[in-house]
This record gives sequence, C-alpha cells and structure tokens, in this order.
Amino acid sequence: MSKDQNNYSSGYKAHHIRHHEWRTAENSAQNLIPILISLAKTNPNLTMLDVGTGCGTITTSLAKYMPQGRVTAVDLSPHVLSRARSLAADNAAASPAHSAVNVTFQQADAYELPFADSTFDVVHSAHMLTHLDEPWDALREMLRVTKPGGVVSVRDADMQLTSYYPELPGLLHFQELICKVMEEVSGGSAKGGRKLVSWAMRAGVRRDQIVATMSGWAYSTPEERAMISETFCDRLTIGSVGKTLLEKGLATPEQINEMVQALRAWCAQEDAFWGMAVGEVTISKTVTA
Amino acid sequence: MSKDQNNYSSGYKAHHIRHHEWRTAENSAQNLIPILISLAKTNPNLTMLDVGTGCGTITTSLAKYMPQGRVTAVDLSPHVLSRARSLAADNAAASPAHSAVNVTFQQADAYELPFADSTFDVVHSAHMLTHLDEPWDALREMLRVTKPGGVVSVRDADMQLTSYYPELPGLLHFQELICKVMEEVSGGSAKGGRKLVSWAMRAGVRRDQIVATMSGWAYSTPEERAMISETFCDRLTIGSVGKTLLEKGLATPEQINEMVQALRAWCAQEDAFWGMAVGEVTISKTVTA
Repeated sequence: MSKDQNNYSSGYKAHHIRHHEWRTAENSAQNLIPILISLAKTNPNLTMLDVGTGCGTITTSLAKYMPQGRVTAVDLSPHVLSRARSLAADNAAASPAHSAVNVTFQQADAYELPFADSTFDVVHSAHMLTHLDEPWDALREMLRVTKPGGVVSVRDADMQLTSYYPELPGLLHFQELICKVMEEVSGGSAKGGRKLVSWAMRAGVRRDQIVATMSGWAYSTPEERAMISETFCDRLTIGSVGKTLLEKGLATPEQINEMVQALRAWCAQEDAFWGMAVGEVTISKTVTA
Repeated sequence: MSKDQNNYSSGYKAHHIRHHEWRTAENSAQNLIPILISLAKTNPNLTMLDVGTGCGTITTSLAKYMPQGRVTAVDLSPHVLSRARSLAADNAAASPAHSAVNVTFQQADAYELPFADSTFDVVHSAHMLTHLDEPWDALREMLRVTKPGGVVSVRDADMQLTSYYPELPGLLHFQELICKVMEEVSGGSAKGGRKLVSWAMRAGVRRDQIVATMSGWAYSTPEERAMISETFCDRLTIGSVGKTLLEKGLATPEQINEMVQALRAWCAQEDAFWGMAVGEVTISKTVTA
C-alpha cells in the first residue's frame, strides 16, 4: 500500500475480518506479554500506542497486561475502527471484570502519527508493516513517538512460509496466488517477517538495539480449520481477492472454484494442519537514538 | 532413519553439534515451560522422559523448571550421550546453584523404550521424530510410557519453511539440497513440523487430545549468524552433508563451494535474517487412552 492509498477500508470486509478477530495477544503477540508485565511492574502508568489496530482484538487483550496503563490504538480506516470500538464494547459487556477500559481508538496514518516526539513507553504494530511499500518510514515514525528507553515491538507474517498438510494442489495454487496478489497488486511484501531487521536498520536503528525472533500461527482444531478456510473461501468467492484474480487475469473462475474446493477438502480432513511463520522484532530506543 | 539404522552417531560430528548445543528450553521448548511449572506446583516430584536428548542442552534447561523432579534423558547414540554428560558436568561446575542435578542419561531406542507402561508424568522429544521413517511408532511408544493424565510434548522443524534474507542464490540451492538429503538419503521428513498432528493420530490419539502450535528459530545477531553459517559450512566441507552430496551426484565440488561462499556472504551482512518454523504438539494422555 503506498502512502496515498487506503485500500484497507474498501478491501477488507466482514468475512476477511473473521481471521483478524481471532487474533489475541496470546496467539499473536506472545513475545510482548512478558515485556509489558515487567514494564508495568516498575511503571504502572505505562502508555502504549498500537499502530494499525484493525479490529482491535490484539490491542484490547494486550491492554489487560497493563491494567493501570493507557493504550492508544490507531488505524487508517474509520470503517475498521468502528468495528474495533463495537467489539471492545461487546467484550466489556460480556466480561466487565476483564474488559480493557483503558483503550482509546482514533484514526491516524502510520506514516504521520499525530503525536509529539517521545510520547509512549511502548509502541506496537502487528501485521501492518508488511502491507506498506515504505515500511521503514512507518517504523521511523513509530520510533519518533517512543520515549527514549522505550520499546518498539513489531511483527509480520512471512506469508511465503506457509505450510499445509495435506498439500492439496489447489491449496498450493492458492498459496502462489495469494502471495502474488500481496506483492504485485497490493504493494505489500509476502516475505515481511524475514525483512523486519533490515527495515528497522533502514529506519536508523543499530543492530544491537534489536532482538529478532520467530513465532507462528497454527490452525488445526475443527474450529480453527473452519475459521481459516471459510475466511479464504469468502475472500475468493465474494471478497476482493477473487475479484482481483479475475480482473488481473491471474485465475479463471474454474481455478477459483478449484481453490475453494481444496480449502473445503482440507478443512474436512481431521488431521489437517496449516502453519504460518511470523517474524518479530523488539527495538530498544536508546536515550540518544 | 529406519529402525535398524543408527546414523546419528556416525553422521553427527562436533561441528554439527554446534547448533544443537545452542538449543535450550527457552529458545526450543517455550511451550513446555509453563506446563512444567504448572505441573510441578501440584506435583513437585514430577518425572520426565526426554527422548532423543542429543547433547542434552534442552533437557538440562527444562530440568531447572522441575527442581525437585527427576528427568531421564535417552538417546540412541552412546557417542552423543557422552557429550551430553560432559556438557551437563561443565554446566554444573560453572553454575552450581543452577545446575540440573536431577538428570540421568542413558542409551535407549525410541522405538523400544526400556520402561514400563505409565512410568512418566511428562514425555518430551525435540527434533527427533522428523529423522525417523516411522515416527508414529515412536510416538505410540512415548504414549505407552506416559502415565494416564500425563502429557507428551513433541516438536520438529519444518525444514522446508526456512526463510533467508537476503535470498542469495547459493543459499536457496543449499536449502533445496539440504531438504533433499533429509528426505531422500537420510529417510527423514523435511516437512515434519506440519505432520505432527497426523503422526499423533496415526499413533492412536484422538484429535481432541492434541494442542498444535507453531513456533520458530531466528538467527540474526552476529553470534547467531556465525553459529548457524559455520555449522553448515563445516557440514558442507568436512561433514557428512558435503560427502553425501558428492557421493550421490547431487552437487559438484564447485557447487558446494558456491554454497559455502553464500553462507559466508550471508553471515557478513549486518541486517541478515534466517528463520525456521517449528511445529509443536502437546498430547494429553487420557485415563482411558
């Protein structure tokens, strides 16, 4: 996505968001949890910015690890922010004792964050940089609004590192095309996870300020299989991915149907597994940086 | 590796083991740590079996999370067990307060464990099943020696899910050949990580007894880059991988040299990253299973 685009609000529909809403701190930001717990011990009034909060489920579950702190969650898309506010309210109503009341959602551009230098103790971003064509500029902006001594924690999937069992031909074709759409049409990177260290260094960070790790997502229970396969079936049949494939001549309606059938056959197999690798980088902002 | 082979002792030399000795519970068995802590709270005298302990560094670091418990660590290779005992003794001498004095090493075959049914509370195995040609039989044996109500925790890399930045041509050739050697010569699986659920079910486990997750290894600091690139340079030049590639006609000496040069060039690049996905499965042995 280039700096003058906002295809998130137009391209992401409810069926796309199904997988996004499955994401929580526990399955999608495990490395940040002990850092937040540790920082909140010495500084209960911790402040965190979440950039590209999307439907906000990672943000609100992270906020519970800093109950006296304050979290600001931003996204470019007003559409997805209204969904995030609605989900957070539902969550608070369903579980008042565990609701994250300390989260404020607001519209903002990752390339031009509307905050003063050195505002936040922690700045987090999950699965956002990989959609940008100049991710190092967004990282530089995230570092700017981080306090000296603070932490920037970012993560992105390495979509090319996706594993399927069984490896049905239709799934492998789907994998090839979803990476092509990501790279050639949407202007993102299907290999974001492995590039985070290089993006951070391009943003001006020294190697010794960075801790890089790799984690992942796995889908294999009946519920997880249904969630991930239905998400992608919908994106192929009624969502923007199928539309793009047809418009760009990357797939025929018959091929789209074959991919949908493969996703459904995979979902129906009880011992099926779908894994995806996720790169993680934690940057310590030095007092002089 | 078939049931009548033991190529581990002959194929694994000191330079191979460099990467193996880097492995600890913290970087290679993160999902088991909270389980051990939780179990040791209610049962301080917890017993654990580690199958395929190798040089034992994961085993001894896991043992520290169950300080009053007892750990039995087995491997097929007497050669690597003597290395494990020596490393454990060095570790104990260097850090007496943190040494894992509760670990016993012994020689055993994963296909025929010399223990009675229902002996251990926890049975663990890291990066071993993927080397076997009948991993489900080893899993069935691990389940046999686990107490009803106990846990079997296994993990294996999905070697095909390896990411390099930068993607030097010599590295991609190396990746292709190392997977080929693993699959076609050694009789293992280069896609073990994604198959663990299916292997567990083939061993007689119900899907609802399994929790499947995905984690990973990342190499990007100067020390990590040197460790992983030197390990593989040595395996290509003086180790069994290079010898196998030449013997099987899979690579020429010039191609081996190109791969070594690529590994060194990758190592020298400050923003380089190497990630590998690891599949994890935790099986709860039911009282009736």
